[in-house]
Amino acid sequence: MGPGPSNPYPGAVTAAGSPMLGHLDPAFLDVLDATCEELRQVFRTENSLTLPLSGTGSAGMEASLANLVRPGDPVVVGVNGLFGERLCEVAGRLGAEVVRVEAPWGQPLDPEAVLRAHPAPRIICVVHAETSTGVENDVAAVAAGKGEALLVVDAVTSLGGVPVEVDRWGADVCYSCSQKCLGAPPGLAPITVSPRARAALRERPPTWYLDLGLIAGYVEAGGGRAYHHTAPVLMVQVLHGALQALLAEGLEASWARHEAAGRALQDGLEALGLELFAAKGHRLSSLVTVKVPTDLPGGLDEAGVRRRLLEEHGVEIGAGAGKLAGQIWRIGCMGHNARLRSVETVLAALGEVLGR
Amino acid sequence: MGPGPSNPYPGAVTAAGSPMLGHLDPAFLDVLDATCEELRQVFRTENSLTLPLSGTGSAGMEASLANLVRPGDPVVVGVNGLFGERLCEVAGRLGAEVVRVEAPWGQPLDPEAVLRAHPAPRIICVVHAETSTGVENDVAAVAAGKGEALLVVDAVTSLGGVPVEVDRWGADVCYSCSQKCLGAPPGLAPITVSPRARAALRERPPTWYLDLGLIAGYVEAGGGRAYHHTAPVLMVQVLHGALQALLAEGLEASWARHEAAGRALQDGLEALGLELFAAKGHRLSSLVTVKVPTDLPGGLDEAGVRRRLLEEHGVEIGAGAGKLAGQIWRIGCMGHNARLRSVETVLAALGEVLGR
Repeated sequence: MGPGPSNPYPGAVTAAGSPMLGHLDPAFLDVLDATCEELRQVFRTENSLTLPLSGTGSAGMEASLANLVRPGDPVVVGVNGLFGERLCEVAGRLGAEVVRVEAPWGQPLDPEAVLRAHPAPRIICVVHAETSTGVENDVAAVAAGKGEALLVVDAVTSLGGVPVEVDRWGADVCYSCSQKCLGAPPGLAPITVSPRARAALRERPPTWYLDLGLIAGYVEAGGGRAYHHTAPVLMVQVLHGALQALLAEGLEASWARHEAAGRALQDGLEALGLELFAAKGHRLSSLVTVKVPTDLPGGLDEAGVRRRLLEEHGVEIGAGAGKLAGQIWRIGCMGHNARLRSVETVLAALGEVLGR
Repeated sequence: MGPGPSNPYPGAVTAAGSPMLGHLDPAFLDVLDATCEELRQVFRTENSLTLPLSGTGSAGMEASLANLVRPGDPVVVGVNGLFGERLCEVAGRLGAEVVRVEAPWGQPLDPEAVLRAHPAPRIICVVHAETSTGVENDVAAVAAGKGEALLVVDAVTSLGGVPVEVDRWGADVCYSCSQKCLGAPPGLAPITVSPRARAALRERPPTWYLDLGLIAGYVEAGGGRAYHHTAPVLMVQVLHGALQALLAEGLEASWARHEAAGRALQDGLEALGLELFAAKGHRLSSLVTVKVPTDLPGGLDEAGVRRRLLEEHGVEIGAGAGKLAGQIWRIGCMGHNARLRSVETVLAALGEVLGR
């Protein structure tokens, strides 16, 4: 119940025992094609270039920017948490002129401020679901006013659990991870690229490993399956197993389940007398943040509470990250764990450790 | 029996069913520490900075260069196959002054030519085991004469199956993959960095995802386990399972087993009347290359032979890559598959399909 990895769907666990296939075996290419199609469904997109990148969610962030940013490009980044900061750092290393638009951690971004920040940004980056604060940012509003800019959306903590609408929004690039609301282990970064963004991809970006043009030649059947790197076969099979479970339930049913579980968790934490951290009305169901109370029982500090939860109850929750270290806890409610029974378990354990 | 992935060790398969652990769970950090120590044993090194990178073998290549190369650096690359070419491409994208030292594909590099190619190279890159040709290059001879240069060694197709001696050679950076002679699925890139290379790492390399300095802060216990990206927990557990199997057998015993199986495969192919491709005396045991005969039985082309092997015998072998496409087959003899019984299976199947 931390900020990810979450416990995988049973179908993902089963898939982990599949026999090894070669990365060019027709049987594996069928699995890869199916996985890409499942990702289109969860991203709500028709984008042909939709695939699981061979790295964790942060590789999705790096690929998004490294394939688009040219030195000197104005890149507007909304920053109201650790992952907005990370976008600035990645863009900065690529030589972008980074324009930061800040909001306090725990508050949502102001979409108007993001849109006013530069007269002609080449790229605008927004984190949909800030894993460091539990806040949902209003991507639709930014997308509606983006003009000629390319919109890059980080959906690491939302995809599969919180509504993501790539085509309806008009997002140009959207990336996520495998280990949160998609219910697989960490190791892959689902990513989708609109035709407009695809036309803007750099031809020979500084990264060879994450070069989306070369990767497309292997992933898309029309690309002739040109060898780029050896696909992480096992992880793709496992992600496929997780996505099958998610889509068998139904994407909207999964959103509703995350919503119900997240709300129950928030209510239960308040019933324990704890104070939620993220601004009301902008709270994620998939990642709930709560302030560490000042009156911890004798001798316990915040890390001690987490240690007791893990050692005595088998429940993991997350610490605060970045400048929120020591101040909040982050409780995930993602994928297979987004269920009332998991919420009840974490609330009971936390109540016991806190003596409430 | 292709050029990788190979069938994983049973211990790796078992580990794939392990419960999910958080990337900061003490139980997972124990697995990670053990995996890094096992990698030191297979690399034959004392290097503290030794770890499984969160990407495939190509991510290891990119990390090696992206963390060292500064624009304008003279980088000498030995090129006698596809992976030498790839090193040139990766270094070129990073702004290096690439100095190519070529040998014909199928022949080994001339170490003297590599050492004479530039008066003061900052980096020298050599592929130990060329997966595209089946040739072993003489890393020790290049290392002995490298002077002030940093030596980067690609051990993707040798580590675990063919002697790699990072410290004895004096290699500065050495990377590999998980899915060949280490006997795990693809998805991780083991890498080791000498203290001298570590002191030369760029402070803010263009890649954030593969920034070895930041990754060290998480992987090394002394770095305070600073969060960088979410470690691919399942794949690390699986690699740990494979390495335990390999080291329980013994590294030298594994080398001897690969040597015996590779020799039997080479002898068996010649007994079928086929001609080996790689130069005699420089042939890898882990990856055997053989010329496609001109007298294929009626109606079959080289791809048809591979298809029949796969569909009728459940045996995968690899096609030629790059400029050798259509001219050779590549047969892996790696990890769990480096056994006489696997060799007998592939020889029997190939004999049947070729009518020999």
